[in-house]
Amino acid sequence: MSQCPVLALAEQLIARPSVTPADEGCQELLGERLAAIGFNLETLVFEDTTNLWARRGEQGPLFCFAGHTDVVPAGDHLAWSSPPFTPTYRDGYLYGRGAADMKGSLAAMVVACERFISRHPEHQGSIAFLITSDEEGPFINGTTRVIDTLEARQEKIDWCVVGEPSSSDWLGDTVKNGRRGSLTGDFVIHGKQGHVAYPEQVRNPIHLAAPALAELAAMEWDKGNEFFPPTSFQLANIQAGTGATNVVPGKLQGNFNFRFSTESTAAQLQQRVLDTFERHGLDYQLRWTLNGQPFLTAAGRLLRATEQAIVDVTGKTTTLSTAGGTSDGRFIAPTGAEVVELGPVNATIHQVDECVRAADLTQLAQLYQRILEHTLCPQVTNKPR
Amino acid sequence: MSQCPVLALAEQLIARPSVTPADEGCQELLGERLAAIGFNLETLVFEDTTNLWARRGEQGPLFCFAGHTDVVPAGDHLAWSSPPFTPTYRDGYLYGRGAADMKGSLAAMVVACERFISRHPEHQGSIAFLITSDEEGPFINGTTRVIDTLEARQEKIDWCVVGEPSSSDWLGDTVKNGRRGSLTGDFVIHGKQGHVAYPEQVRNPIHLAAPALAELAAMEWDKGNEFFPPTSFQLANIQAGTGATNVVPGKLQGNFNFRFSTESTAAQLQQRVLDTFERHGLDYQLRWTLNGQPFLTAAGRLLRATEQAIVDVTGKTTTLSTAGGTSDGRFIAPTGAEVVELGPVNATIHQVDECVRAADLTQLAQLYQRILEHTLCPQVTNKPR
Repeated sequence: MSQCPVLALAEQLIARPSVTPADEGCQELLGERLAAIGFNLETLVFEDTTNLWARRGEQGPLFCFAGHTDVVPAGDHLAWSSPPFTPTYRDGYLYGRGAADMKGSLAAMVVACERFISRHPEHQGSIAFLITSDEEGPFINGTTRVIDTLEARQEKIDWCVVGEPSSSDWLGDTVKNGRRGSLTGDFVIHGKQGHVAYPEQVRNPIHLAAPALAELAAMEWDKGNEFFPPTSFQLANIQAGTGATNVVPGKLQGNFNFRFSTESTAAQLQQRVLDTFERHGLDYQLRWTLNGQPFLTAAGRLLRATEQAIVDVTGKTTTLSTAGGTSDGRFIAPTGAEVVELGPVNATIHQVDECVRAADLTQLAQLYQRILEHTLCPQVTNKPR
Repeated sequence: MSQCPVLALAEQLIARPSVTPADEGCQELLGERLAAIGFNLETLVFEDTTNLWARRGEQGPLFCFAGHTDVVPAGDHLAWSSPPFTPTYRDGYLYGRGAADMKGSLAAMVVACERFISRHPEHQGSIAFLITSDEEGPFINGTTRVIDTLEARQEKIDWCVVGEPSSSDWLGDTVKNGRRGSLTGDFVIHGKQGHVAYPEQVRNPIHLAAPALAELAAMEWDKGNEFFPPTSFQLANIQAGTGATNVVPGKLQGNFNFRFSTESTAAQLQQRVLDTFERHGLDYQLRWTLNGQPFLTAAGRLLRATEQAIVDVTGKTTTLSTAGGTSDGRFIAPTGAEVVELGPVNATIHQVDECVRAADLTQLAQLYQRILEHTLCPQVTNKPR
């Protein structure tokens, strides 16, 4: 085990094969460390999901670290250079499923807290951890239900740092200060089946749909804004046909996904799709799934603290981004919390031989500690260094 | 067994379960009857297919009846009102697999020949039968190989009546005097797979293909002509997607079928598809299968004889058509033969409870006999009646 406390804890977490929604004792391990420095623990089990809400202090403002102990499946273990649930160092990197997404971040958060509390026992506000085991799964019984529990008792997060691997090339090069919304549409377009030799007796749903789909694919939904790229529409699946080349199919089915900016609402996007289908005279069914609303963190205390911490620790300037996939930040932001995402380089996440630079994890603990200092000990950090 | 010789022979043929490419002795039965009236028999077996070439007479012109003894599968026998291979009469109809397509026609052809030869032993020209057992199958080892054999020895058919069920409402209402061509294209359109959250890193093959497919679906290929409806293009199958809604697929694949008139050639249609794919900048693969060239029988002696025979026997006027599916006529017409298709009402073919009006089969034998008289005994039929 590494002499570095961050790496040592990351190793212990990686060794637990917590494939979503399993936790495999990760939260118990984290909870023991947090209890030792004064956190009160609350384990919230919803169906197959284990969640940990740990809080130290009663007063506001409430600073929260959010993350998940579950990992995506390792796939074929033999395809890995070393066993996925055996933490292994090679060439300065720590390998293992979850090393970057996001057991390394959890370890950095805990060690950062230990050091911060040891140095600043009289800090302002409170600190909490919101840890789930279903971020990689259907995200039904995880963060969203913990947030429901907190809201029911009017417990409110002011600042939240999510440990998702936000970095591209070097640790801290990118901070996510929001995420696009995600909206999925499943459609069926009906025609009339028949033999290709009798075209006057059929209505070919592929022919009927093609101009409408071409129009949707070419549409500009919005231009994005300072923080968001333009809304993107992607047809993900499409299927029609019986397999036979002499039969015109009776229906075409498929689905598409929007990643949308704050310049569009889900309702506006839905209406434009409906209008397009109607204008083309289609006989259709549409079913919508709103996976997440877009959110953008206002440029408040937490965001400034994060940007400054990155300058302090790395000497370089970060970039704000709202790109990439969804994260549990979408469930926390609607409560009014200021949410940022900061974590390791994401180049290998969800892949074989997932890894993280060992030095990045120790530096990540410094970053998290510095963010705590900038938010909860402004009297310290505002002093001339 | 029926007292009517046409129906009696049809019953014997239906009782033989000759699901394609099986013949089950049907051709032997037909051959015995033909040998008895002076036909020379030649059985040509190519792989799984049995073919019969029977000819009576040496001189030209050569009149040929063409047909097939194989039938499509009966499907679930219990779905039939009576067993599919047990010829059964109900309400004036003869039921059984092949009753309409086309064992009834074969029986009518044989009985028509028996009567014609008995009445006109000194007729002009020769008569032949070209019978196969793979018309309902892949049509590789059937009519096309018999034609090859005949061409190799310079044996040429002048007039050919194919017994396919050409009629719609009443026996003889439609004569097929040609067929459209059939051309199939299988395509793959390549894009670049990736996560929907990173649209700048993907090339969505559905988006790339949609405008090109819409254009092909809307295209006028030709206007048809007096004998052919306009060429028809139908996308039959299309598929793209991994099933996941957050992944842009790497390729779209599918196929389409042309039914084309004599106003277009296969090469012209292929070029227009290629041009469309190229103009849209697609990265594609295309594989073509030419299932059959279009053919049109010139309005010669056989067509006039057929039209006149229908007037003579039914008192009504027929309609010429090139619509509907393909038939083995497409293999015979390219030799220069005049080809017409005349057979029973096709309402129940390939279905459960396939049937034919019993009275239609006896009348069909009269029709075939009358066509023989108009072509091979013009001195008889040109007499005032």
